[in-house]
Amino acid sequence: MQPLPSTQPWDDEDGFHEECGVFGVWNATDAAALTALGLHALQHRGQEASGIVTLAEKGAFHAHRGLGLVGDIFGDAKVMASLKGRCAVGHNRYATTGETALRNVQPLFADFEFGGLAVAHNGNLTNAAVLKRALVRRGCLFQSTTDSEVFVHLIAISLYANVVDRLIDALKQVQGAYSLIALHDGALIGARDPMGVRPLVLGRLGAGEGGAYVLASETCALDIVGAEFIRDIEPGELVIINNDGLRSIKPFGRTQSRFCIFEYIYFARPDSVVEGTPVYATRKRIGSELARESHVEADVVVPVPDSGVPAAMGYASEAGIPFELGIIRNHYVGRTFIEPTDQIRHLGVKLKHSANRPMIEGKRVVLVDDSIVRGTTSKKIVEMVRQAGAKEVHMRISSPPTTHSCFYGIDTPEREKLLAANHDVEEMARIIGADSLAFISLDGMYRALGRPGRDAANPGYCDACFTGDYAIPLTDFEGQPERVPTLLVANSK
Amino acid sequence: MQPLPSTQPWDDEDGFHEECGVFGVWNATDAAALTALGLHALQHRGQEASGIVTLAEKGAFHAHRGLGLVGDIFGDAKVMASLKGRCAVGHNRYATTGETALRNVQPLFADFEFGGLAVAHNGNLTNAAVLKRALVRRGCLFQSTTDSEVFVHLIAISLYANVVDRLIDALKQVQGAYSLIALHDGALIGARDPMGVRPLVLGRLGAGEGGAYVLASETCALDIVGAEFIRDIEPGELVIINNDGLRSIKPFGRTQSRFCIFEYIYFARPDSVVEGTPVYATRKRIGSELARESHVEADVVVPVPDSGVPAAMGYASEAGIPFELGIIRNHYVGRTFIEPTDQIRHLGVKLKHSANRPMIEGKRVVLVDDSIVRGTTSKKIVEMVRQAGAKEVHMRISSPPTTHSCFYGIDTPEREKLLAANHDVEEMARIIGADSLAFISLDGMYRALGRPGRDAANPGYCDACFTGDYAIPLTDFEGQPERVPTLLVANSK
Amino acid sequence: MQPLPSTQPWDDEDGFHEECGVFGVWNATDAAALTALGLHALQHRGQEASGIVTLAEKGAFHAHRGLGLVGDIFGDAKVMASLKGRCAVGHNRYATTGETALRNVQPLFADFEFGGLAVAHNGNLTNAAVLKRALVRRGCLFQSTTDSEVFVHLIAISLYANVVDRLIDALKQVQGAYSLIALHDGALIGARDPMGVRPLVLGRLGAGEGGAYVLASETCALDIVGAEFIRDIEPGELVIINNDGLRSIKPFGRTQSRFCIFEYIYFARPDSVVEGTPVYATRKRIGSELARESHVEADVVVPVPDSGVPAAMGYASEAGIPFELGIIRNHYVGRTFIEPTDQIRHLGVKLKHSANRPMIEGKRVVLVDDSIVRGTTSKKIVEMVRQAGAKEVHMRISSPPTTHSCFYGIDTPEREKLLAANHDVEEMARIIGADSLAFISLDGMYRALGRPGRDAANPGYCDACFTGDYAIPLTDFEGQPERVPTLLVANSK
Amino acid sequence: MQPLPSTQPWDDEDGFHEECGVFGVWNATDAAALTALGLHALQHRGQEASGIVTLAEKGAFHAHRGLGLVGDIFGDAKVMASLKGRCAVGHNRYATTGETALRNVQPLFADFEFGGLAVAHNGNLTNAAVLKRALVRRGCLFQSTTDSEVFVHLIAISLYANVVDRLIDALKQVQGAYSLIALHDGALIGARDPMGVRPLVLGRLGAGEGGAYVLASETCALDIVGAEFIRDIEPGELVIINNDGLRSIKPFGRTQSRFCIFEYIYFARPDSVVEGTPVYATRKRIGSELARESHVEADVVVPVPDSGVPAAMGYASEAGIPFELGIIRNHYVGRTFIEPTDQIRHLGVKLKHSANRPMIEGKRVVLVDDSIVRGTTSKKIVEMVRQAGAKEVHMRISSPPTTHSCFYGIDTPEREKLLAANHDVEEMARIIGADSLAFISLDGMYRALGRPGRDAANPGYCDACFTGDYAIPLTDFEGQPERVPTLLVANSK
Repeated sequence: MQPLPSTQPWDDEDGFHEECGVFGVWNATDAAALTALGLHALQHRGQEASGIVTLAEKGAFHAHRGLGLVGDIFGDAKVMASLKGRCAVGHNRYATTGETALRNVQPLFADFEFGGLAVAHNGNLTNAAVLKRALVRRGCLFQSTTDSEVFVHLIAISLYANVVDRLIDALKQVQGAYSLIALHDGALIGARDPMGVRPLVLGRLGAGEGGAYVLASETCALDIVGAEFIRDIEPGELVIINNDGLRSIKPFGRTQSRFCIFEYIYFARPDSVVEGTPVYATRKRIGSELARESHVEADVVVPVPDSGVPAAMGYASEAGIPFELGIIRNHYVGRTFIEPTDQIRHLGVKLKHSANRPMIEGKRVVLVDDSIVRGTTSKKIVEMVRQAGAKEVHMRISSPPTTHSCFYGIDTPEREKLLAANHDVEEMARIIGADSLAFISLDGMYRALGRPGRDAANPGYCDACFTGDYAIPLTDFEGQPERVPTLLVANSK
Repeated sequence: MQPLPSTQPWDDEDGFHEECGVFGVWNATDAAALTALGLHALQHRGQEASGIVTLAEKGAFHAHRGLGLVGDIFGDAKVMASLKGRCAVGHNRYATTGETALRNVQPLFADFEFGGLAVAHNGNLTNAAVLKRALVRRGCLFQSTTDSEVFVHLIAISLYANVVDRLIDALKQVQGAYSLIALHDGALIGARDPMGVRPLVLGRLGAGEGGAYVLASETCALDIVGAEFIRDIEPGELVIINNDGLRSIKPFGRTQSRFCIFEYIYFARPDSVVEGTPVYATRKRIGSELARESHVEADVVVPVPDSGVPAAMGYASEAGIPFELGIIRNHYVGRTFIEPTDQIRHLGVKLKHSANRPMIEGKRVVLVDDSIVRGTTSKKIVEMVRQAGAKEVHMRISSPPTTHSCFYGIDTPEREKLLAANHDVEEMARIIGADSLAFISLDGMYRALGRPGRDAANPGYCDACFTGDYAIPLTDFEGQPERVPTLLVANSK
Repeated sequence: MQPLPSTQPWDDEDGFHEECGVFGVWNATDAAALTALGLHALQHRGQEASGIVTLAEKGAFHAHRGLGLVGDIFGDAKVMASLKGRCAVGHNRYATTGETALRNVQPLFADFEFGGLAVAHNGNLTNAAVLKRALVRRGCLFQSTTDSEVFVHLIAISLYANVVDRLIDALKQVQGAYSLIALHDGALIGARDPMGVRPLVLGRLGAGEGGAYVLASETCALDIVGAEFIRDIEPGELVIINNDGLRSIKPFGRTQSRFCIFEYIYFARPDSVVEGTPVYATRKRIGSELARESHVEADVVVPVPDSGVPAAMGYASEAGIPFELGIIRNHYVGRTFIEPTDQIRHLGVKLKHSANRPMIEGKRVVLVDDSIVRGTTSKKIVEMVRQAGAKEVHMRISSPPTTHSCFYGIDTPEREKLLAANHDVEEMARIIGADSLAFISLDGMYRALGRPGRDAANPGYCDACFTGDYAIPLTDFEGQPERVPTLLVANSK
Repeated sequence: MQPLPSTQPWDDEDGFHEECGVFGVWNATDAAALTALGLHALQHRGQEASGIVTLAEKGAFHAHRGLGLVGDIFGDAKVMASLKGRCAVGHNRYATTGETALRNVQPLFADFEFGGLAVAHNGNLTNAAVLKRALVRRGCLFQSTTDSEVFVHLIAISLYANVVDRLIDALKQVQGAYSLIALHDGALIGARDPMGVRPLVLGRLGAGEGGAYVLASETCALDIVGAEFIRDIEPGELVIINNDGLRSIKPFGRTQSRFCIFEYIYFARPDSVVEGTPVYATRKRIGSELARESHVEADVVVPVPDSGVPAAMGYASEAGIPFELGIIRNHYVGRTFIEPTDQIRHLGVKLKHSANRPMIEGKRVVLVDDSIVRGTTSKKIVEMVRQAGAKEVHMRISSPPTTHSCFYGIDTPEREKLLAANHDVEEMARIIGADSLAFISLDGMYRALGRPGRDAANPGYCDACFTGDYAIPLTDFEGQPERVPTLLVANSK
């Protein structure tokens, strides 16, 4: 009902690409504080906004949300005291700023006939625009520009009586990648899409009747609250947690698992364990594979901090070349910074990174980074290392070339802007100014994950950004934007 | 979709009592600036929040809203520049503070299948809760706690194809008092409820094809933008303004006119002309009637500023007693002020008013005020005048005793808190500490409006706060809150 | 020590023209709350900034200051609780916005060898620039751009041991108009300049040993805290208030009294009594004198609100013409407002005033205002009244023509910008568009104050703005800005 | 002149312990932008506040300062555009929040008889309180609570005509550690205290007449603006830079060099080169020395990030034990965060660090950190590593035990709170819960710096925090706080 800047907000791309973290807890003292801590541990999944909704007695909900870091939003004792109740759900969001953003901060909350429902969602729906158009036609009024609101309206109009049935009804109509946590008076519900593209783990705080269940995007959020890891939620699984315990439903039957391989490469925190595999060790193994595949004579292996560090360690160790912190990262960048004027831009100013000149001067340097997207950052880094006196600069990348956009929840630019979509490796080396450039091979990456190589028939991971193998339909992004699903109401009987 | 503090916001009384001002313009250069000026002239109808929605080319809408005074919200050149377009609708609101309030600031805006629609509403619906319950049951998600949102959902779910038909469909389902202005790509629409309880006037800026139509709550808003007054919108009338001119519809057929008489007493600005009658002159005539009805020997007639001034002038002139500004009003009160501690409360501190001691000391004072609601203010004023040395204090009130609450858009307390609902005039005089107290009679008030007296069969005004004669049903406030209108969908065919 | 925008801030005119209100209290429970109330009653003397310094036990001072209205700055219970102590001094300031202003908000406070000292000052020094130059030459570092800081440095470098002696030492070196209140560990001190240009009154709260003394710019500030008026501080008098009672010193010997006559015309609040004369009654008498001096045939007398109201009442009563509120003032202007664009400026938009058309249309109108400065406001008002249909507009001004600037604390523009400095009355009437224009005569104004007329040898009031008779030297504004008083240190022996 | 919270602000310890960064540039296009970049590179030396003062034509100065990070304070294009001129000086400050802080943000600026002067200061004066007392006695009014203001007053009252002579006059009266940069109309001046405790380096941007000189706390600030390193400013040296070039003065004659050894251990950025020695390589060498001195059988060497990383790499390499990132640092902590409630405090929550469980579980861990101050952080880290499943935890510290407070500009707590001041190493191990604990020896630390060991007669570094050998008198902190230097004025002849 709020004034909107345009009549077609769902055409705004901003609403469709989100990296997010979710956290939920059922039946714990200090539920809001635990959720704030969990969101803090998941801060790397979204730094622009956060929200928490708690459930107190008699179905009363309490909410707080804001733009900024978790510590700033939930650092106020009065705010925390207002978030009453033993159950909570929280969300970190990667988003743009301004009023629009505040409307979009999750968890979304709605009053239904059956009571309130809070929903936190990580991922991206690929038929949200089509569904939204149909819902608006039916008389639904949209408030946010997030695809997550589609869930809420589908639940609202479902003809099922039961909340879980309504939620399943909604899930069956959407396409895309999602890990979601919903909270209502009767239960905390966790769900992963049928292919399990985005992560969701289950943990337990304390034992017996007084124990609490925790749901989170990554295990590092279980660690910070002292929860014991139980298991990953499975692809296509729905878990319903309440005072009677945990119940699991598989409404989609058997499905093929396609966890996002880029979480291993870059996105997940190094101290998390994803689907049984520690992230940090995987990254080191990728570095070792990379060294084996593309060795080069050099004096020093230097990571592009922070994400390139484990792979560089693996590379250095395998290659027998000293590992040195030849690039220092400045962690105090602040929200805004001066746009360098033309006069000083030629200085090659680096705000986030600076070369550790004495470690680089006169040396043959292997730079290790996790990926090349547009190539602009790599170009600046190589230039900075050269200005610091490197004799040679060899770039090694711990992922295959990023040739395709992600439509499943990782914020990547359009394909035209991906360097690897338009240039071969040799051209890329020239563009970024490196003496040599090498990416890990697809098979090498799968070997580092403990497989013999990539099995095209059943890769077991979503690697669409490297292969273009999109396992989930891209309805909104295909030819006919006007196509409306006619089965909408029948479906929801 | 935003986090809400509770699952039943529509039980919150805050959403039901509103005094507001509305303004709209079609086809004018600087539409947003004209609207800001109009809202400024209507600031007395609501000081806590304002919003403007403009319509630019190709159905694109722009919006800005905020808490505070019009001048503060729309004083920023960048804000004004962003409100592009030749058509606009604006709203002033009397509201509480906090996030809740911001969600409720009008104009409400929604994206429909047919495009965007902005709605600004002054008044109060008396079946909003019943309708809201039915709408939620149907799957509608409510975002604000204002009854105005009910309009928007009724429009959204209407089965009519045409916007005007949908709006009429919605109006036929609501009960209560409303003057509303709606803006969509095809027209600016003004509407008054069938009894015309709340005001709405039509004006014109410039002549011929380049001329613009203006709708506003009061004529003072036409004056500030230099618009010529054309006529009042009639009770139950709908006017549709677009580039083809103005079209009038009367969907409710013939109805009885019941304009709010309290607008004359207190609420409207003194320089406005309402339904053909100047407010200032009416107030002076009421003062004269009051002097005739309840003369008292005195040395000086003193108004309680600012609202009591015209009646006091009429009283003084008729009674032949000098008129003096014996009470000074401090206009710089600020948003907040110190809660007086117990130690200083006994000083009888007056933040808004102070006695002009040299004009009062040793004198017999007639105090003239517009109404007595709870009586607390009158008590303080009388006490202050006595402390300044008055020999006698005679209170004269330019309205009949306020014995009933208003459910049609004027913020009055519950009946139990109305002094006149629980005490006769003699007791009231004792409670407020006056040597004598008199109210104008019902007939006297009607005489001042040019009638022979009150015609109970067809009073011509809504005077429910003085008589309890509620002409519009009070559905939400009657016995059966669970009653749901079953004809909702049929109605909207 | 703060970064300053330029090296010569004391050349900035902003620091030299101030209208202010001061308030002080010694030995009262809730000293800070009383001071906030007093400043609230003095809000008309300065609306842009306020500050309070309190003195708690053992010479500990507490301070709070801010930009905005008193109620907003001191409306926070935590702020009030932090202002501990039974003694306080406060200040309202008319000032420009921005950081500069915050540095300049009074009371000024400094740590001396003998302890802390807070100083609040209303008025304007006329040799502040000369003194400042000498002080800087001596090594003094200035922080603010207010002339009041000169006081503080003169006190700091004085060679006298005693605070009061140091203050007198400082006062003997300054020229200009000032009413000041100083607070240190041993006493509350009030002082008026030798000619008593600016007002300062003494009051008492409670009796006997537990009683408190109050100092304030006007009696209305005594009224709000329930203090009894004792007397005006005399021109050139210093009162020292501490637990032993009140002591009076006259360091300047006999001096000629020259109270600012403009305080009666416009500046003081109508309910104040200044030097024994009620302001409201004086303004009415001026109106009567004006009617006698410049009668005109008319249908209605209309005040320019709010300041012109009492004079208009006096005029109407004397002339036997009906008094009507033909212009309505909008009190909700807000801090900022849209700069009207060229397109709508021609509408003659009035944000502060609007014509009450039904009272004006077709009538011969006498407009009564307090003064004409630049003439721009009068021009707009006349135009607005004509647009509302007035047949004739006769402007009557309740002060003589303002032909000279004030250098003693009233913010007036430079002489070139004063309409009356450059035009005779006939030209002025033409410029503002009135059918006739008349000012009260100098003698008429003095008659309204109870004198036979103006005695040029000893007028008894400062009327420099009407006569150019500047009784206090204008050192800073005369020819030789480089002149430095050489006696500075000798003086302060 | 601003209201101060107490009369004795200089007793406030806050003003005396500062870690800061300074930067200055003479004669460069975009001087303000270069300074903002330089301050950004020095952000690790102070994150709470920053300021820049620029010098434009004709002696006009421009200033901006704020609380927060450099990028936030100087990220506004309007702010940067307002900082006109080719010369600038900037300052980063470690400070407390609130109004007090804003008054204290440097560069300090004052208007003298000779024009404006901006001063930025890193370090701590040890006789500031004594000097301040004498200055106040003389009539000086202090505005900030920083010891740096003492400089400004000493310059203001100096009897020398020339700015440089006045500055030398001031420097000769102060005791303590300082690197300062001053800017006035005629020159940019850099100075280090006679023992050169705090760092200051000289660089050059561009060559020939169009070239610019740069002064900065560390070489990393030269690198970011592309300036070439020329040399360290020498202990006790004053450099005066203007359009005629650079002039060096040694007003103190020969002095003993005592650079702060803790800058190598912790404070300087790893990519800086201090007094000819690269910081990163030094830290690795300290790690190697530490491994030689206190080897222990273990499975993994884990740094406490970020400061412990280079020493841990040196340790691991020398000891032949794998180096692993067993602790992950969360860089998104935000300004505030929830105070953990009692209920969740037992969870051992770590907001800044988390254990990388798979790298630690079941392992014997060597933890390497740079220092132990109070011991509370070490205790938490050890506990966290144990909770993650470590079999043994051996703590190794890359500095000797911190037994004494720093009075020369590093913020350390009082001696009573230093763990090593009150406990031997064995007790410390028990307190922090480690299986073993070892510090590098004093001689080992000096060996890592290329010396044979510590030469007690002439150590060449200030190591007072490890040895109590305070080379500069601690006047303010010794017995007689009332002692006032009597030679103050004579001195300033």
